[in-house]
Amino acid sequence: MFRPRSTMTVTPGIQTTLLRYQREIQEALRAALQRGHHPTQATNLDPFYGQMQYHLGWVDPSFAPVPLNPGKLLRPTLLLLAYEASGAWGLSEQEGTDYLRRALPAAASVELTHNFTLIHDDIVDNDMERHHQPTLWTIWGSSQGINTGDGMFALGRLALWDILREGVEGEIAARLGTILDRACLIVAEGQFLDISFERREDISVAMYLDMISRKTAALMSCATEMGALLGTRDEATITSLRDFGAGIGIAFQVRDDLLGIWASSAELGKTPAGDIHRRKRSLPILHALEHASAADQHTLHRLYRQETPLNAEEVASILAIFERTNTRAYCLDFLGQQCASARQALANVPRLASANALRALEDMETLIHFVESTVHA
Amino acid sequence: MFRPRSTMTVTPGIQTTLLRYQREIQEALRAALQRGHHPTQATNLDPFYGQMQYHLGWVDPSFAPVPLNPGKLLRPTLLLLAYEASGAWGLSEQEGTDYLRRALPAAASVELTHNFTLIHDDIVDNDMERHHQPTLWTIWGSSQGINTGDGMFALGRLALWDILREGVEGEIAARLGTILDRACLIVAEGQFLDISFERREDISVAMYLDMISRKTAALMSCATEMGALLGTRDEATITSLRDFGAGIGIAFQVRDDLLGIWASSAELGKTPAGDIHRRKRSLPILHALEHASAADQHTLHRLYRQETPLNAEEVASILAIFERTNTRAYCLDFLGQQCASARQALANVPRLASANALRALEDMETLIHFVESTVHA
Repeated sequence: MFRPRSTMTVTPGIQTTLLRYQREIQEALRAALQRGHHPTQATNLDPFYGQMQYHLGWVDPSFAPVPLNPGKLLRPTLLLLAYEASGAWGLSEQEGTDYLRRALPAAASVELTHNFTLIHDDIVDNDMERHHQPTLWTIWGSSQGINTGDGMFALGRLALWDILREGVEGEIAARLGTILDRACLIVAEGQFLDISFERREDISVAMYLDMISRKTAALMSCATEMGALLGTRDEATITSLRDFGAGIGIAFQVRDDLLGIWASSAELGKTPAGDIHRRKRSLPILHALEHASAADQHTLHRLYRQETPLNAEEVASILAIFERTNTRAYCLDFLGQQCASARQALANVPRLASANALRALEDMETLIHFVESTVHA
Repeated sequence: MFRPRSTMTVTPGIQTTLLRYQREIQEALRAALQRGHHPTQATNLDPFYGQMQYHLGWVDPSFAPVPLNPGKLLRPTLLLLAYEASGAWGLSEQEGTDYLRRALPAAASVELTHNFTLIHDDIVDNDMERHHQPTLWTIWGSSQGINTGDGMFALGRLALWDILREGVEGEIAARLGTILDRACLIVAEGQFLDISFERREDISVAMYLDMISRKTAALMSCATEMGALLGTRDEATITSLRDFGAGIGIAFQVRDDLLGIWASSAELGKTPAGDIHRRKRSLPILHALEHASAADQHTLHRLYRQETPLNAEEVASILAIFERTNTRAYCLDFLGQQCASARQALANVPRLASANALRALEDMETLIHFVESTVHA
């Protein structure tokens, strides 16, 4: 089944962007986990929160701390970039990073929400490993996995309300809650489609794109919309930054789909044609099925139904069909359109007389460039 | 594993209370489901929302409408009673029920949240039936079951925000969101404990009471607190009504535990000693284990470990041990304490010069009386 990839080859430019808020986001996540912990005399809830910490990569299965591997924190980073780019309430010229405090609870909230979806995804997909570690449900069972995911969902929501302590007005807070809840519902709609598609062979490109726009992009556009709403009252700016998030969200997914077929392992740490071996029904195969000759369609269906591993010759025949249907060109073109749309959305954001706001916009341009350029390698 | 019972024998007095808002709550639930439905050209999301409607008892597995069986709607009813009792913003003397609109989105929110927990509980407990119908996951699989539960969790949150359209201030809305999110986290803590207890034989009465106060009572006290917050700004009243919800929540559970052992099927539609046959580790067995002689403890452990069905003689020997440990008297006494505490909390609510507010307080007294009296039969 479809699942966003956790690996991302990081070029120096994007590395700077992804590391920019790492410390602050980690601190906000720790504060959120702490906030949820209700000590009790009769019972011990440590293992409940310990499971969450394990999933976040902070502790091992016996709850002993491990060297931190914080992951890329893409969604909270997007939220904070949108916050800065939209003005950060005019605070962003201050020394240090104190002005970030206003947006950090929302950043933690989005990251916890994303991680709740991963905990449940791992159960649904029967995935045994994530980041080369056993998945939560394989250690504590799927019952605890379902429930710890639910707990992280609730905790993600609870973390958001810390914005009230940072002086965010109740009205804005309620609107942020609405944006996040709507995104969560849309992500569940996307997951419903993804699970439904699993046993079907009649999935069109349009259906697939609708699914990923919900399952993957919705939480990214939610992140940039929330960040913008914390940074400005200008509705046009909020809409533009939300649209940027939607575009880059789909682009990231299509990039992964491209790399799943045409990446060379040396460059990107991925198996060439890995998604063919996994028979993953991502964008390339769906495009090829729509545009192949009847004979080629027949071959694709046969090889994707077959239960035995594909041999080199079979993989080559699938790649040859992709060639005949111009599938790679189509995917690259579609990726380019999404990046152009994200870039256009950014162009509509007013340039503020703030070094931090301009730098945030540059960082977002860097992200677009990264998504676009790495697949041309 | 422990699960709140869905059956409730309804006496005429409580029937009036439980039917009071049935129509309005059902309409609010339908509005909430409608609100979540995002039509799309490429894909069909009807079965996603159809699964939710099936769980709520509105449609059959092919999504055809069925005669409505709305369930008892206890939590939203508690919310609306607390709303009325606390003053309903001084609106409750109006004709009709229009003043309820302010609180109905919160009532729908709490009911959807409760139902999300039931969808996941059924998967965790491997339960095949609920209300004599196949559970959601047995029809659509546990992957869709996990996800539809997540979707209903999100929808429950989204439903809340309709209070903004009803004129509830952003600050109050954000506080209501906080109360609900905290309750959801505490419910997940309770579920963590419940799952953890399953394989353990060293569960004390104190641990069990801590578990049910989280898993069962937290959402009831959340409901009365939310209702009160919508009805008044007086913090003492809000606290009292929250405490009423906590007391009645635990009382309902202990009542179920009592009926699970000592109900006669004729009176209450339950198998006598049903929880003994199911070997459910509810309050009576935990109390008996703590107070039995070493020999009786040994007998209890042996019979509860045994995999074969218990015969009449074995059940009788367990009931005899309960007799020797005064377990029924203990449970009745504890139930009485919880009811007294709920009654005391109600006594602290100021009597307003409003017929509706006074009637709501009477309804809450009726609920307490119902919980207390039905187990003495």
